[in-house]
Amino acid sequence: MSNIKIYLAQINNTVGDINGNFNKIIKNIKTAIENDCNLVIFPEMTISGYPAMDLWQKEYFINDCQDKIIEICKISKNTKCHIIVGCPTLEKINSKKIIRNSAIIIYDGKISKIIHKKTLPNYSVFDELRYFKPSSIIDTKKFNDFYCNIFICEDAWDEKNIFLALQSEIDFSIIINSSPFEIGKYNLRISKCLNLVKKTKKPLIYLNQIGGQDSLIFDGASFIMNKDGTKIAHMASFSQDYAIINIDKTHQIDIVKSCVKKLEFNNYQENNLAAIYSSIILGVRDYVNKNGFKKILIGASGGIDSALVSSIAVDALGSENVNLYALSTKYNSKESLTDAQKLSKNLSVILEEISIQEIFSLMQKSVNNLSDIALQNLQSRIRGNILMSISNSNNSLLLSTGNKSEISCGYATLYGDMCGAYNPIKDIYKTQIYQLAKWRNSNIPEIALYKKLNIIPGNIIQKEPSAELKENQKDSDTLPDYEILDKILYQIIEQQQSIADICQMGYNKDLVEKIANLFYNSEYKRKQSVIGPKISKMSFDNERRYQITNKYKK
Amino acid sequence: MSNIKIYLAQINNTVGDINGNFNKIIKNIKTAIENDCNLVIFPEMTISGYPAMDLWQKEYFINDCQDKIIEICKISKNTKCHIIVGCPTLEKINSKKIIRNSAIIIYDGKISKIIHKKTLPNYSVFDELRYFKPSSIIDTKKFNDFYCNIFICEDAWDEKNIFLALQSEIDFSIIINSSPFEIGKYNLRISKCLNLVKKTKKPLIYLNQIGGQDSLIFDGASFIMNKDGTKIAHMASFSQDYAIINIDKTHQIDIVKSCVKKLEFNNYQENNLAAIYSSIILGVRDYVNKNGFKKILIGASGGIDSALVSSIAVDALGSENVNLYALSTKYNSKESLTDAQKLSKNLSVILEEISIQEIFSLMQKSVNNLSDIALQNLQSRIRGNILMSISNSNNSLLLSTGNKSEISCGYATLYGDMCGAYNPIKDIYKTQIYQLAKWRNSNIPEIALYKKLNIIPGNIIQKEPSAELKENQKDSDTLPDYEILDKILYQIIEQQQSIADICQMGYNKDLVEKIANLFYNSEYKRKQSVIGPKISKMSFDNERRYQITNKYKK
Repeated sequence: MSNIKIYLAQINNTVGDINGNFNKIIKNIKTAIENDCNLVIFPEMTISGYPAMDLWQKEYFINDCQDKIIEICKISKNTKCHIIVGCPTLEKINSKKIIRNSAIIIYDGKISKIIHKKTLPNYSVFDELRYFKPSSIIDTKKFNDFYCNIFICEDAWDEKNIFLALQSEIDFSIIINSSPFEIGKYNLRISKCLNLVKKTKKPLIYLNQIGGQDSLIFDGASFIMNKDGTKIAHMASFSQDYAIINIDKTHQIDIVKSCVKKLEFNNYQENNLAAIYSSIILGVRDYVNKNGFKKILIGASGGIDSALVSSIAVDALGSENVNLYALSTKYNSKESLTDAQKLSKNLSVILEEISIQEIFSLMQKSVNNLSDIALQNLQSRIRGNILMSISNSNNSLLLSTGNKSEISCGYATLYGDMCGAYNPIKDIYKTQIYQLAKWRNSNIPEIALYKKLNIIPGNIIQKEPSAELKENQKDSDTLPDYEILDKILYQIIEQQQSIADICQMGYNKDLVEKIANLFYNSEYKRKQSVIGPKISKMSFDNERRYQITNKYKK
Repeated sequence: MSNIKIYLAQINNTVGDINGNFNKIIKNIKTAIENDCNLVIFPEMTISGYPAMDLWQKEYFINDCQDKIIEICKISKNTKCHIIVGCPTLEKINSKKIIRNSAIIIYDGKISKIIHKKTLPNYSVFDELRYFKPSSIIDTKKFNDFYCNIFICEDAWDEKNIFLALQSEIDFSIIINSSPFEIGKYNLRISKCLNLVKKTKKPLIYLNQIGGQDSLIFDGASFIMNKDGTKIAHMASFSQDYAIINIDKTHQIDIVKSCVKKLEFNNYQENNLAAIYSSIILGVRDYVNKNGFKKILIGASGGIDSALVSSIAVDALGSENVNLYALSTKYNSKESLTDAQKLSKNLSVILEEISIQEIFSLMQKSVNNLSDIALQNLQSRIRGNILMSISNSNNSLLLSTGNKSEISCGYATLYGDMCGAYNPIKDIYKTQIYQLAKWRNSNIPEIALYKKLNIIPGNIIQKEPSAELKENQKDSDTLPDYEILDKILYQIIEQQQSIADICQMGYNKDLVEKIANLFYNSEYKRKQSVIGPKISKMSFDNERRYQITNKYKK
């Protein structure tokens, strides 16, 4: 009985890196051919990267992408291997340019079909209607003896498309994706795919890209679903991978190569700490490397935030590429320095100690009547200045260490601890910081370069948090318990609840109003904040869009 | 013969300020009634402000907006005055929420009609498809004996809507707008309206809002067009205004009250310096005031950028609300200080002088092996730190002073001179800076609070620009002539041309490549840059959207 051998290429591409992305495509096509595959599939927008944003508006960029398709055509000649590759396409209708998000199917030297995306997401971090025109055409594609529907990402979530697709008999469905990670997203994908399989009663191939792309972390975690809706093959999360499967005419699937062992990791629960931690590793690693850097530096206060960022950095880039700096004033305790020293030892990184007390004293004198808050910010900004000077001098990137709770309340200092090229914990609430630190102490993520346990000193996790910007300062002087704060912030941010609704849940009205005010009044700081990986369903980069000048704070 | 008396309310509203916007509406309705008007018209989205962005996704926000409509209904009772007011509306269809950009028409205590926007802009700074569902219904509305089409902004630009509108006989058209200023935009509006009038052969009322809303400056400049396409009434540019007109059944228009005298100002040419300068005044004034501040401070280097920002600031807020600070190192010339002193005298503001040389020397010693660029940035960041300390201490806002040319090339220092709450010249090329300075020296803008000429010292305009961050430094050491630089940048940014295309225009290839590289490699700085008023067709806030991690630099 005839069957079709399919190669799934879960690759890590980069926005705008047309040549680099093309080279990865070619390499995978060759492996597919060596393995006698009949069909090789690449994710959505493989050639341009996703999201290429305003690059997609440039005709010459689209042309450069399309030129690579011609080269792939040449390579496909006489191979008997079909190729599906995501690419932007440009049509001119009556001199009007129409740009589409397309899947291009190539066979034996030619484009055999082009399928355009129908359902264009334009919410959350997505702006596809800014760039693309939707198509309304659904038709099947025949590969050898097999009929198939090809969906591009959210096409398969849309009942209208599914209804049209069901008009033709198929052997299996393919969905190519650029679907970024967020907590709970994997389960959403599964439920959407289950819905489709229940209707088609045929197998389904879900192929996602992987890689960090600024704030977005594509987790891969591609899978194949049997005609009865069971998942029967999984690909790696947060790393490049490929799979090979056979499908026969009875729609039985035979797994030739895939990472079934990683099954349990894919089953992300709400708050799956392994997934969150791994996504941040990938975000940091790809941001640093894809931008041509190797080394990073971090200001290590001895507190939990910079400790977690340091451990992530070492996991992402290796000890040899991370440098820590402790920049102390008279307000920093001995305990803090000892903790930072222990951390650096555990992580096998160098900690350099620089006192900024003298600079702080001198700067204090240069301006009359500095307020209490100005004095606190001054210290933070001296630190920022010194860390940036080091960054500028040795071409290493500074990581910022403000967590989501403090960025939400405006408790991070603009141009101070907010300095940096990337903030690994921008989307992580303080309570999650502790969870991740504890989790990392007893787990080694698969994609980590640093393979030790217990790297964050216990005292850093146990002691009461303090910014140490004045005598005996504690976070709790000005903020409520993080347990309560984070719950209220979650309602405001992720759940978009009003103050009235949150009070109805039983929270104290004065407290909710205070937090909502802090939150809405610090919009200007978030506008100037550095990017960081999105892990929640409401991160701050490009996902949550507000004016600074806004009088509505309910 | 019967006629209709119409009141046009060109008001300055604020995003999220539902109560404040409502109060302005009520005030204008009262004036309209006192003047026996039969119809009063408010701009697009008057109640919520524009763009309310993700506030529009909150059901409770829409409900609060709609509650104000009920209050307006009450006020309209027994008045014989129709009211058209822009407002977001919420419909629930099968438990699915649909939010619209609507014009609500109120008469005698009731909503008499709701018209929804049909053509939703989703390009440039606009994201209306993120928030609203488009309508496809066009129908006329009768006011007393007069039939009328009501368009919401770009509805009137769309031939499909115009075709449908022409199916019914009307007496005049109304377009309510939230159309932000940019160079050349006024002429575009006129041409779109002329197109409509040529087809309807009936008068047209174009009503726009005014006011600064973060980066967007709504210029007002509303107008009335006769049935033959001549403009016969103009409202103020960049300030609140109202007009009253009579239209009779022969479609003759009688102007009862309008600002015809401002005619010449409305006729913005490309590069109308009066319009650009005025738009920035309004941007600064509204940003500062709408965010609850009064006072601002500026670092005055003695150079042209900070001089222009200072003059704009004084024009926007008055001398008493502006403080200048000269923060010098050994690299700052005496000439610079003298120039800054002259400027402060001309502007009647206080200039405080603080030497940062000692701090600079001390900080230099704290880190080993600082690179040349680190040493330059260090000075800039010490200035940023001191200015922010003052800002934090006396609750005044810091204005940033980086022009578009240097922000494009990455020549501004992150956390240094890029510090600030608002950057008035973010969208102004260096060559335009000089033009605006010269223009201001011989003109007093109508909306300026400061009524003196020749406020920017001639030497500041004439001398060669320098950052003065090292010995004998000149901008020309590292950058080409601004005349050439700005032309190349304009092609890259505004015209979105490729390097190849720009070279074809006759520019030197090495130079174009160098500039393009500087531009694309400084994306990370622009991502953290402070907002400033949009005056061009490609500003940097939310209008130009790129990833930092992007390998395509052609």
